[in-house]
Amino acid sequence: MFDGQFLTIADYEQHVRQQMSPALFDCEYGSHGDPAWSTYTSNRAGFHALKLRPRVLVDVSRRSLATEVLGQSISLPVVVGPTGGLGVHDPQGELPTVRAAGAAGTIMVLSGLSTCPAADVAGAATCPWLQQVWILEDRELVAWQVRNAEELGAAAIVLTVSNTGETWHSAQLRFPTTGAPDDGPASNLVELAHRAPTVRQFMGSISRASTWADVRWLRELTSLPLVIKGIQTSEDAELCVEHGVDGIVVSNHGGRFLQGARGTIEALPEITATVGERLEVYLDGGVRQGQDVLKALALGARAVWLGRAARWGTTVAGEQGVRNVLEILQRELDGSMGLCGITDVRHVPASLVTRDVVPTVEN
Amino acid sequence: MFDGQFLTIADYEQHVRQQMSPALFDCEYGSHGDPAWSTYTSNRAGFHALKLRPRVLVDVSRRSLATEVLGQSISLPVVVGPTGGLGVHDPQGELPTVRAAGAAGTIMVLSGLSTCPAADVAGAATCPWLQQVWILEDRELVAWQVRNAEELGAAAIVLTVSNTGETWHSAQLRFPTTGAPDDGPASNLVELAHRAPTVRQFMGSISRASTWADVRWLRELTSLPLVIKGIQTSEDAELCVEHGVDGIVVSNHGGRFLQGARGTIEALPEITATVGERLEVYLDGGVRQGQDVLKALALGARAVWLGRAARWGTTVAGEQGVRNVLEILQRELDGSMGLCGITDVRHVPASLVTRDVVPTVEN
Amino acid sequence: MFDGQFLTIADYEQHVRQQMSPALFDCEYGSHGDPAWSTYTSNRAGFHALKLRPRVLVDVSRRSLATEVLGQSISLPVVVGPTGGLGVHDPQGELPTVRAAGAAGTIMVLSGLSTCPAADVAGAATCPWLQQVWILEDRELVAWQVRNAEELGAAAIVLTVSNTGETWHSAQLRFPTTGAPDDGPASNLVELAHRAPTVRQFMGSISRASTWADVRWLRELTSLPLVIKGIQTSEDAELCVEHGVDGIVVSNHGGRFLQGARGTIEALPEITATVGERLEVYLDGGVRQGQDVLKALALGARAVWLGRAARWGTTVAGEQGVRNVLEILQRELDGSMGLCGITDVRHVPASLVTRDVVPTVEN
Amino acid sequence: MFDGQFLTIADYEQHVRQQMSPALFDCEYGSHGDPAWSTYTSNRAGFHALKLRPRVLVDVSRRSLATEVLGQSISLPVVVGPTGGLGVHDPQGELPTVRAAGAAGTIMVLSGLSTCPAADVAGAATCPWLQQVWILEDRELVAWQVRNAEELGAAAIVLTVSNTGETWHSAQLRFPTTGAPDDGPASNLVELAHRAPTVRQFMGSISRASTWADVRWLRELTSLPLVIKGIQTSEDAELCVEHGVDGIVVSNHGGRFLQGARGTIEALPEITATVGERLEVYLDGGVRQGQDVLKALALGARAVWLGRAARWGTTVAGEQGVRNVLEILQRELDGSMGLCGITDVRHVPASLVTRDVVPTVEN
Repeated sequence: MFDGQFLTIADYEQHVRQQMSPALFDCEYGSHGDPAWSTYTSNRAGFHALKLRPRVLVDVSRRSLATEVLGQSISLPVVVGPTGGLGVHDPQGELPTVRAAGAAGTIMVLSGLSTCPAADVAGAATCPWLQQVWILEDRELVAWQVRNAEELGAAAIVLTVSNTGETWHSAQLRFPTTGAPDDGPASNLVELAHRAPTVRQFMGSISRASTWADVRWLRELTSLPLVIKGIQTSEDAELCVEHGVDGIVVSNHGGRFLQGARGTIEALPEITATVGERLEVYLDGGVRQGQDVLKALALGARAVWLGRAARWGTTVAGEQGVRNVLEILQRELDGSMGLCGITDVRHVPASLVTRDVVPTVEN
Repeated sequence: MFDGQFLTIADYEQHVRQQMSPALFDCEYGSHGDPAWSTYTSNRAGFHALKLRPRVLVDVSRRSLATEVLGQSISLPVVVGPTGGLGVHDPQGELPTVRAAGAAGTIMVLSGLSTCPAADVAGAATCPWLQQVWILEDRELVAWQVRNAEELGAAAIVLTVSNTGETWHSAQLRFPTTGAPDDGPASNLVELAHRAPTVRQFMGSISRASTWADVRWLRELTSLPLVIKGIQTSEDAELCVEHGVDGIVVSNHGGRFLQGARGTIEALPEITATVGERLEVYLDGGVRQGQDVLKALALGARAVWLGRAARWGTTVAGEQGVRNVLEILQRELDGSMGLCGITDVRHVPASLVTRDVVPTVEN
Repeated sequence: MFDGQFLTIADYEQHVRQQMSPALFDCEYGSHGDPAWSTYTSNRAGFHALKLRPRVLVDVSRRSLATEVLGQSISLPVVVGPTGGLGVHDPQGELPTVRAAGAAGTIMVLSGLSTCPAADVAGAATCPWLQQVWILEDRELVAWQVRNAEELGAAAIVLTVSNTGETWHSAQLRFPTTGAPDDGPASNLVELAHRAPTVRQFMGSISRASTWADVRWLRELTSLPLVIKGIQTSEDAELCVEHGVDGIVVSNHGGRFLQGARGTIEALPEITATVGERLEVYLDGGVRQGQDVLKALALGARAVWLGRAARWGTTVAGEQGVRNVLEILQRELDGSMGLCGITDVRHVPASLVTRDVVPTVEN
Repeated sequence: MFDGQFLTIADYEQHVRQQMSPALFDCEYGSHGDPAWSTYTSNRAGFHALKLRPRVLVDVSRRSLATEVLGQSISLPVVVGPTGGLGVHDPQGELPTVRAAGAAGTIMVLSGLSTCPAADVAGAATCPWLQQVWILEDRELVAWQVRNAEELGAAAIVLTVSNTGETWHSAQLRFPTTGAPDDGPASNLVELAHRAPTVRQFMGSISRASTWADVRWLRELTSLPLVIKGIQTSEDAELCVEHGVDGIVVSNHGGRFLQGARGTIEALPEITATVGERLEVYLDGGVRQGQDVLKALALGARAVWLGRAARWGTTVAGEQGVRNVLEILQRELDGSMGLCGITDVRHVPASLVTRDVVPTVEN
């Protein structure tokens, strides 16, 4: 089914938009308020405003897309980021995704609210996987998730801080019963099901009182590398360094929560300039093409994380879909490197990119 | 009726546009000339061009939206601004609006050309209310309005200066008989009805000769706090300080009169930079989402005032509509604060906002 | 017919577009190539990018729109500029236009290729009129036009330099036989009809070899004030001063010939900054609203000239149409002055305008 | 057929888009991913953002469009650039194009993968022609092409470096069997057909390992002038000088391969500023109007090269089409020169252009 049909990530988006009910699509991918002026739009526009300065006559016959993330070798600078409850799209939940990540030689980040128990994912994983968590009101639940992940062999803990449990999202309010599994069992947390028996209850228990003290607590709780996902300012990036954090994901949660924020690629430079030498910086939000990856690397990111793109892959064709999404980005990144005279994703010079001097609105 | 249907201010606008006759809508909300290049458009675009820099890992479990306006405590930094003659939309005129403002714990500003007499509004009010006035050719009529308001317990006098009685508005010329109550009685001024028996005559009597001398006169006439609504430059803001004014509303009258003006959020910084320490600065014009409020506060405004948004609420569902409008903005502001690490509307740092580096035109 | 129907210049444009055949409209108002990326578009966009900073609490009860152009008193800073062969739209040719200009208390500039002989226009004129000329290959024909105008009482000579006889215009090539009077008699030049019997031949005889020496020649030929229309750079403005020119029209010929030029309001500042103290500077191109006039004045123009707007007036309703067009601009300018705290068009401060910081694309 | 129908290059594009199957059009002219945010769009937008500052009252009765490219006199600064396999559009392949170039008094650049053998083109040529080559894996094939061209009288060798054999283009993947002659014989290389019997194999053999050492090798291989096509940075332009290159084409391959690159007119200034005094600089990409040529010359280019525009001419009407395309650009360039006071394409001042201060989005 992939011959000539799914050649770009945009093909996946288009297919999902057409197949999924508008209510479910809006609930999963919509944002609050006017989509034309959303943070999601800014994510894409930010990439577009950044232009490439390709170098030529460089031997690009051998290109290395391999890099290291938190000491883990990966075959391309694209990490499959966490997205919740994949069971709504695939009866096997997160298993097809982790298998695809393994097949592509990269890393999967398991959502703290996955459909499958972490143990199942760990069992199926042929690649490093990271456990994403929130600071919940019930810190014990977090501690259990972290320890459970450690025992199951997670390669790192990822703390998401870009959603403090706000529930005023217009799409969610508009379609309260969309078939999204909010009232389904938080099955991966079955051990502690009495504390957060449903997804809705779990999400509602994200602590609005989480602070850097929680980062200190988490830092002491585990010896695994610690990543914070959702940093958008140099000030907070500096605090990450001070708290012994190993990596940052510059992220606005795919533009789904706070509206009016910068595109992540706009926020990236102030962060890499401040802490880029002291911890690893990643980016998610609006990555849809191989050259987006290249632009993020030129601005100092070590890798990008996928949200929607990988999820669309699962929705369209399970494991095969995610593999194809990763192949598309791999092919586009590889090709863009060839056309830019870049041979190693670990050495992408800042001079590769320049700000657009004019907005390019198609006529 | 509000379940799942009116979740954003845009939902109200859409409903009103669909239900109201185009002629009346244009007369109430239109502006002169091309809407695509209007001051109204600039109001919205200005907010969009300003981007948020959210801070994370701040304890946002307790957030205070309360602030003070002219010594009055209000529960959220959103004031229900003055809009004329609400009787055209609700048989009870301004009463539902003032009740809603009270229920929300904020302030209502009574238009100098309300449907209801000020006494009726004062009688229904459970919250502080401000009396808006113009400098009319008949200064006695203004003096009467001010003294009447004082006696009725108004908390302040608001002098509007952004409409000097110009009557060349294309929408108004195009639809002279729209059902708008221009030829109806200026009922709230019944005591002086022989001087300005109809709305049209009242509006026609706005003085084109008003100057800062009138501000001095007004300043001496009343001991109530005095606010000037319609300031758009730092020069005039400085003059406000010099004339003992207590507050400024940065306003272009919702973009309805002068076309080609800046969006108010564009004008705000030069004003707060100049006088922000010496009087209170508010803003109206284009406030449609909670994050707009936050942006205005970050640039030094103490509160925003609502024009269209509140009026749409009245039109759709009277008191319940205005309450819902205020609830939406309260919910969005509260949520945006949570996502930005802001816990108190009185302490929103300037570093929260940054100029957009690229225009984000949706593709 | 003007009640509620023609309230803005845009109403005229819309009417003309709907009534006129596309071929004739394109021939009269089109430009070469893509209209969306044309100089005409830049003329409008330039005005839009400039924003007003209105002052308040100024006594605007008495406003003076009167000014002087070349020593002639006019009642508003809007001159009816030259457009060719109005006979195609009105059997009386230029007479309705000159009557309307007189009624409005302003000046009319008679095209060097009018339908009516200058003598007829002079006879009908109740206002000062200027004679526009080109440098033709046959300098004697120019000399005759100038001397004829002098004898008929013209108030100045206007030399157009923004069309050097180029004939590669796509609209003109595409519709060679549109009913435009190109092959009709150059009736106003009947005395010299053997030299340029048709419009097409006349236009074809515009000299491509005209230089500043021709300006010197013209300067010596007549004692009337001399205006050059079509200046777009400070360098050429300086040369105008050096050659004793009395006025400049910053003009790109309404965007009809050279594509890719700046909007005239963009070119104006470098010109007024260089020569604004030494001669009078006017502007045409894209003036469609009263606030456009105000913006041009703030940037140092003494008056604006109308091209399309006045011609559309003639097309729609002859003299009454031009009068209404001038009334619209008068009303909008007057109203905008009132809303900006400007009382005299001769004293519009530069601080009234500021560059737009963001593009405002309507959503 | 050209009377009134094909008056602009846009007319050709429109005709080709309508007549050609979408699949073939996309394969020939499409780019990877979203067309609205493509490098192709940036090429056009870059020209649009650059505005002309026309000078007036210059004697433009005699204008010289003639210039020299690599010592060859040409009658206008427009070179017919290389595009592959024209046989798909015309049974005579490249012969109509070279005849049209000769008739127009300019130069044709023969694609290294033409339909016709170079010998046939050389036989038909009445103008200088240049041989374009790639660095192929089989360097002998390149050497044969170069020596063959030398023997046939080519005026220069053009090395294309903007396509390093990347084959992940979505249009090409989507329509693998479009009728494009990818699987046809590489007939112009018939002497070495056993090495690259088909177009696809030939293209697949473009070396990804080509470096500046290959430029040295090529430089020594031939005494003909050497041009490198595909330079987009000042750094690589400097390397061209160091390697004895005679000319540079600032090119992004018409935006067909690398997406997210600058428009070529955006890249041009840094290149002419660095090496403009030491070698000849040309530009291709987005040239669609005469004033585009003028803008490129003002920024230091010696000539522009045509890609799509000339190919569309062939497609529509063979030799007559290409001649007409060149005539259109000649007419528009000549006319724009007249309107800008430019009399010689070899002397276009930098002051002719200025950056747009505002985006001009049509309303």
